[in-house]
Amino acid sequence: MSGDDRCPSFQAAVELIGRRWNGAIARALLPGPLHFSELARAIPEISDRLLSRRLKELEAAGIVARGVEGGPPVRVRYALTEKGAALEEVIAQVERWANAWQPPAAP
Amino acid sequence: MSGDDRCPSFQAAVELIGRRWNGAIARALLPGPLHFSELARAIPEISDRLLSRRLKELEAAGIVARGVEGGPPVRVRYALTEKGAALEEVIAQVERWANAWQPPAAP
Repeated sequence: MSGDDRCPSFQAAVELIGRRWNGAIARALLPGPLHFSELARAIPEISDRLLSRRLKELEAAGIVARGVEGGPPVRVRYALTEKGAALEEVIAQVERWANAWQPPAAP
Repeated sequence: MSGDDRCPSFQAAVELIGRRWNGAIARALLPGPLHFSELARAIPEISDRLLSRRLKELEAAGIVARGVEGGPPVRVRYALTEKGAALEEVIAQVERWANAWQPPAAP
Protein backbone atom coordinates (compact mmCIF):
# COMPACT_ATOMS: atom_id res chain seq x y z
CA MET A 1 0.00 0.00 0.00
CA SER A 2 2.74 2.43 1.03
CA GLY A 3 0.41 5.37 1.45
CA ASP A 4 -0.98 5.25 -2.07
CA ASP A 5 -4.61 4.95 -1.14
CA ARG A 6 -5.92 5.38 -4.65
CA CYS A 7 -3.92 2.76 -6.49
CA PRO A 8 -5.72 2.58 -9.84
CA SER A 9 -3.90 -0.61 -10.80
CA PHE A 10 -5.38 -2.39 -7.77
CA GLN A 11 -8.80 -1.13 -8.76
CA ALA A 12 -8.43 -2.26 -12.36
CA ALA A 13 -7.14 -5.68 -11.29
CA VAL A 14 -9.81 -6.39 -8.71
CA GLU A 15 -12.56 -5.39 -11.12
CA LEU A 16 -11.11 -7.43 -13.93
CA ILE A 17 -10.94 -10.54 -11.78
CA GLY A 18 -14.31 -9.89 -10.19
CA ARG A 19 -16.14 -9.20 -13.43
CA ARG A 20 -18.88 -11.79 -13.75
CA TRP A 21 -17.32 -15.17 -14.71
CA ASN A 22 -13.79 -13.90 -15.31
CA GLY A 23 -12.60 -15.43 -12.06
CA ALA A 24 -14.33 -18.70 -12.86
CA ILE A 25 -12.81 -18.80 -16.36
CA ALA A 26 -9.29 -18.16 -15.08
CA ARG A 27 -9.82 -20.75 -12.36
CA ALA A 28 -11.03 -23.35 -14.86
CA LEU A 29 -7.93 -22.77 -17.02
CA LEU A 30 -5.43 -23.08 -14.17
CA PRO A 31 -4.88 -26.83 -14.61
CA GLY A 32 -4.27 -26.41 -18.35
CA PRO A 33 -5.67 -25.25 -21.71
CA LEU A 34 -9.24 -26.11 -22.65
CA HIS A 35 -11.37 -26.14 -25.76
CA PHE A 36 -14.38 -23.86 -25.81
CA SER A 37 -16.79 -26.73 -25.17
CA GLU A 38 -14.73 -27.92 -22.20
CA LEU A 39 -14.77 -24.44 -20.70
CA ALA A 40 -18.51 -24.20 -21.26
CA ARG A 41 -18.96 -27.49 -19.46
CA ALA A 42 -16.75 -26.38 -16.56
CA ILE A 43 -18.93 -23.28 -16.04
CA PRO A 44 -22.44 -24.45 -16.90
CA GLU A 45 -24.07 -21.25 -15.63
CA ILE A 46 -22.59 -19.14 -18.42
CA SER A 47 -24.13 -18.95 -21.90
CA ASP A 48 -21.92 -19.68 -24.93
CA ARG A 49 -22.39 -16.14 -26.09
CA LEU A 50 -21.25 -14.60 -22.81
CA LEU A 51 -18.37 -17.06 -22.48
CA SER A 52 -17.20 -16.06 -25.91
CA ARG A 53 -17.40 -12.37 -25.03
CA ARG A 54 -15.52 -12.86 -21.76
CA LEU A 55 -12.80 -14.83 -23.52
CA LYS A 56 -12.30 -11.95 -25.95
CA GLU A 57 -12.06 -9.52 -23.03
CA LEU A 58 -9.59 -11.75 -21.22
CA GLU A 59 -7.55 -12.03 -24.43
CA ALA A 60 -7.55 -8.25 -24.77
CA ALA A 61 -6.39 -7.99 -21.15
CA GLY A 62 -3.52 -10.38 -21.88
CA ILE A 63 -4.78 -13.03 -19.49
CA VAL A 64 -5.96 -15.67 -21.94
CA ALA A 65 -4.32 -16.71 -25.22
CA ARG A 66 -6.21 -18.35 -28.04
CA GLY A 67 -4.40 -21.08 -29.91
CA VAL A 68 -5.53 -22.83 -33.06
CA GLU A 69 -4.77 -26.53 -33.34
CA GLY A 70 -4.09 -27.71 -36.89
CA GLY A 71 -6.99 -29.67 -38.24
CA PRO A 72 -8.94 -30.88 -39.86
CA PRO A 73 -11.02 -30.07 -38.07
CA VAL A 74 -9.35 -26.92 -36.79
CA ARG A 75 -9.92 -26.54 -33.07
CA VAL A 76 -9.41 -23.55 -30.85
CA ARG A 77 -7.88 -23.90 -27.44
CA TYR A 78 -7.74 -21.35 -24.66
CA ALA A 79 -4.82 -21.11 -22.28
CA LEU A 80 -3.68 -18.76 -19.56
CA THR A 81 -0.80 -16.49 -20.49
CA GLU A 82 2.03 -15.94 -18.01
CA LYS A 83 0.08 -12.96 -16.68
CA GLY A 84 -3.03 -15.12 -16.37
CA ALA A 85 -1.21 -17.97 -14.69
CA ALA A 86 0.12 -15.45 -12.18
CA LEU A 87 -3.44 -15.13 -10.91
CA GLU A 88 -3.11 -18.55 -9.30
CA GLU A 89 -2.26 -17.12 -5.88
CA VAL A 90 -5.08 -14.59 -6.07
CA ILE A 91 -7.54 -17.35 -6.93
CA ALA A 92 -6.19 -19.60 -4.19
CA GLN A 93 -6.65 -16.84 -1.61
CA VAL A 94 -10.18 -16.10 -2.78
CA GLU A 95 -10.98 -19.82 -2.49
CA ARG A 96 -9.49 -19.98 0.96
CA TRP A 97 -11.55 -17.00 2.06
CA ALA A 98 -14.71 -18.31 0.40
CA ASN A 99 -14.33 -21.72 2.03
CA ALA A 100 -13.83 -20.16 5.43
CA TRP A 101 -16.39 -17.39 5.29
CA GLN A 102 -18.97 -17.73 2.58
CA PRO A 103 -21.96 -19.82 3.55
CA PRO A 104 -22.47 -22.66 1.08
CA ALA A 105 -25.18 -21.80 -1.43
CA ALA A 106 -28.50 -23.56 -1.10
CA PRO A 107 -28.57 -26.74 -3.17
CA MET B 1 -10.48 -27.14 -6.11
CA SER B 2 -10.69 -30.85 -5.57
CA GLY B 3 -12.68 -31.49 -8.72
CA ASP B 4 -15.48 -29.14 -7.81
CA ASP B 5 -15.32 -27.00 -10.91
CA ARG B 6 -18.48 -25.06 -10.18
CA CYS B 7 -17.82 -23.85 -6.67
CA PRO B 8 -20.59 -21.27 -6.15
CA SER B 9 -18.93 -19.92 -3.00
CA PHE B 10 -15.81 -19.00 -5.02
CA GLN B 11 -18.03 -17.29 -7.57
CA ALA B 12 -19.95 -15.35 -4.92
CA ALA B 13 -16.73 -14.31 -3.17
CA VAL B 14 -14.89 -13.15 -6.26
CA GLU B 15 -17.87 -11.13 -7.46
CA LEU B 16 -18.40 -9.56 -4.06
CA ILE B 17 -14.78 -8.46 -3.85
CA GLY B 18 -14.69 -7.41 -7.49
CA ARG B 19 -17.92 -5.41 -7.41
CA ARG B 20 -17.06 -1.83 -8.27
CA TRP B 21 -15.35 -0.17 -5.27
CA ASN B 22 -15.89 -2.99 -2.80
CA GLY B 23 -12.25 -4.02 -3.04
CA ALA B 24 -11.13 -0.43 -2.62
CA ILE B 25 -13.38 0.07 0.42
CA ALA B 26 -12.12 -3.10 2.12
CA ARG B 27 -8.55 -2.08 1.31
CA ALA B 28 -9.04 1.40 2.76
CA LEU B 29 -10.40 -0.09 6.00
CA LEU B 30 -7.55 -2.58 6.48
CA PRO B 31 -5.42 -0.25 8.61
CA GLY B 32 -8.38 0.53 10.89
CA PRO B 33 -11.90 1.98 11.17
CA LEU B 34 -12.77 5.18 9.33
CA HIS B 35 -15.51 7.77 9.38
CA PHE B 36 -17.58 8.17 6.25
CA SER B 37 -15.77 11.35 5.26
CA GLU B 38 -12.38 9.68 5.68
CA LEU B 39 -13.46 6.79 3.49
CA ALA B 40 -14.78 9.22 0.89
CA ARG B 41 -11.42 10.97 0.88
CA ALA B 42 -9.55 7.68 0.56
CA ILE B 43 -11.54 6.80 -2.57
CA PRO B 44 -12.14 10.14 -4.27
CA GLU B 45 -13.54 8.52 -7.43
CA ILE B 46 -16.67 7.26 -5.68
CA SER B 47 -19.70 9.50 -5.06
CA ASP B 48 -21.06 9.78 -1.51
CA ARG B 49 -24.26 8.17 -2.63
CA LEU B 50 -22.56 5.13 -4.13
CA LEU B 51 -20.18 4.83 -1.18
CA SER B 52 -23.15 4.77 1.13
CA ARG B 53 -24.85 2.07 -0.96
CA ARG B 54 -21.72 -0.06 -1.08
CA LEU B 55 -21.26 0.24 2.68
CA LYS B 56 -24.80 -1.05 3.19
CA GLU B 57 -24.09 -3.98 0.87
CA LEU B 58 -20.85 -4.76 2.66
CA GLU B 59 -22.66 -4.57 5.99
CA ALA B 60 -25.31 -6.98 4.69
CA ALA B 61 -22.53 -9.32 3.53
CA GLY B 62 -21.00 -9.25 7.01
CA ILE B 63 -17.77 -7.62 5.83
CA VAL B 64 -18.19 -4.15 7.31
CA ALA B 65 -19.67 -3.18 10.67
CA ARG B 66 -21.12 0.22 11.40
CA GLY B 67 -20.45 1.65 14.82
CA VAL B 68 -21.92 4.76 16.34
CA GLU B 69 -19.65 6.88 18.52
CA GLY B 70 -21.42 8.62 21.34
CA GLY B 71 -21.79 12.30 20.66
CA PRO B 72 -22.65 14.95 20.55
CA PRO B 73 -22.25 15.03 17.72
CA VAL B 74 -22.91 11.35 17.07
CA ARG B 75 -20.46 10.00 14.52
CA VAL B 76 -20.58 6.81 12.54
CA ARG B 77 -17.48 4.73 12.03
CA TYR B 78 -16.99 1.84 9.64
CA ALA B 79 -14.77 -1.09 10.48
CA LEU B 80 -13.98 -4.45 8.95
CA THR B 81 -15.54 -7.41 10.71
CA GLU B 82 -13.47 -10.55 11.30
CA LYS B 83 -14.76 -11.84 7.95
CA GLY B 84 -13.78 -8.56 6.31
CA ALA B 85 -10.34 -8.46 7.91
CA ALA B 86 -9.79 -11.99 6.59
CA LEU B 87 -9.76 -10.44 3.11
CA GLU B 88 -6.32 -9.01 3.86
CA GLU B 89 -4.48 -11.85 2.12
CA VAL B 90 -6.79 -11.69 -0.91
CA ILE B 91 -6.19 -7.96 -1.19
CA ALA B 92 -2.45 -8.39 -0.74
CA GLN B 93 -2.34 -10.95 -3.54
CA VAL B 94 -4.39 -8.76 -5.87
CA GLU B 95 -1.99 -5.89 -5.15
CA ARG B 96 1.00 -8.08 -5.80
CA TRP B 97 -0.46 -9.21 -9.11
CA ALA B 98 -1.51 -5.69 -10.08
CA ASN B 99 1.94 -4.28 -9.33
CA ALA B 100 3.60 -7.00 -11.34
CA TRP B 101 1.25 -7.19 -14.30
CA GLN B 102 -1.10 -4.25 -14.66
CA PRO B 103 0.36 -1.35 -16.60
CA PRO B 104 0.15 1.84 -14.57
CA ALA B 105 -2.82 3.95 -15.64
CA ALA B 106 -2.12 7.07 -17.64
CA PRO B 107 -1.71 10.09 -15.34
